[in-house]
Amino acid sequence: MNKDDQLFLRRAIALAEQYSADGRHGPFGAVIELDGEIIAEGWNRVVADHDPTAHAEITAIRAACAGRERFDLKGCTIYCSCEPCPMCYAAIFWARLERIVYAADRRDAGNAGFDDDQLYREFLLQPTIQSERLLPEEGRRAFRRWMENPDKVLY
Amino acid sequence: MNKDDQLFLRRAIALAEQYSADGRHGPFGAVIELDGEIIAEGWNRVVADHDPTAHAEITAIRAACAGRERFDLKGCTIYCSCEPCPMCYAAIFWARLERIVYAADRRDAGNAGFDDDQLYREFLLQPTIQSERLLPEEGRRAFRRWMENPDKVLY
Repeated sequence: MNKDDQLFLRRAIALAEQYSADGRHGPFGAVIELDGEIIAEGWNRVVADHDPTAHAEITAIRAACAGRERFDLKGCTIYCSCEPCPMCYAAIFWARLERIVYAADRRDAGNAGFDDDQLYREFLLQPTIQSERLLPEEGRRAFRRWMENPDKVLY
Repeated sequence: MNKDDQLFLRRAIALAEQYSADGRHGPFGAVIELDGEIIAEGWNRVVADHDPTAHAEITAIRAACAGRERFDLKGCTIYCSCEPCPMCYAAIFWARLERIVYAADRRDAGNAGFDDDQLYREFLLQPTIQSERLLPEEGRRAFRRWMENPDKVLY
């Protein structure tokens, strides 16, 4: 545990509580810290923005990256009012965040009517959404062209 | 396989190829279909938008939901040029999409320098990003308040 972990985590929780008070923002908040300062805050806007991807962590990551004009957050920590769902965990992975600190967990979310625990079980056992693979060669072609493209920016 | 699966999947692949040609958009495309029509298209904008969450599937989901002014896509199918990464799989789950059709897979993506396969292994084995739990009670409080809030919109 770092010195200010509780401070930042409480801010994330405060956001969850502040914005969900109107009933149109899910009860989730997140803040992103770099060098001891909060560089971005996020809260759940799924309903308000008609955006099922607008979880607190995602909105915080998007804000932090926009502010820095970068597509990574190396060296940053994310503080989440609740354990990130698999979508947010993966977004944290892609953003190259280095540390996660959270308060409530997936079971708490489940008890509040959110499906995080079910989604985690899908990843650990068997996906339930129907999936099919078609046209594998045509799909690979895009990758080949990408690999051959001298102008590509790796991320 | 449905009648138009290949048609829609080819459109997703075409988007991947079209937009990644400048090297600033990853080689991934996606389209969302409802009742036999494409209602939204997406392509990877991670680099161009400084947004590590802007995978093709996410941008397609966001566009489809914005267009319908809803936060779910029940009854829709998503066609992806590549197997969705765990972030996108989870976003598909949250959006309540009912079907995924894809062409390239995670190994293909890995071969092109993308970390999808590593990320899938994290979910199946052991997360590698450092995680800690603190303040569980304060985290739960936000959920309790949510549950007690008569104005909340469930999603």
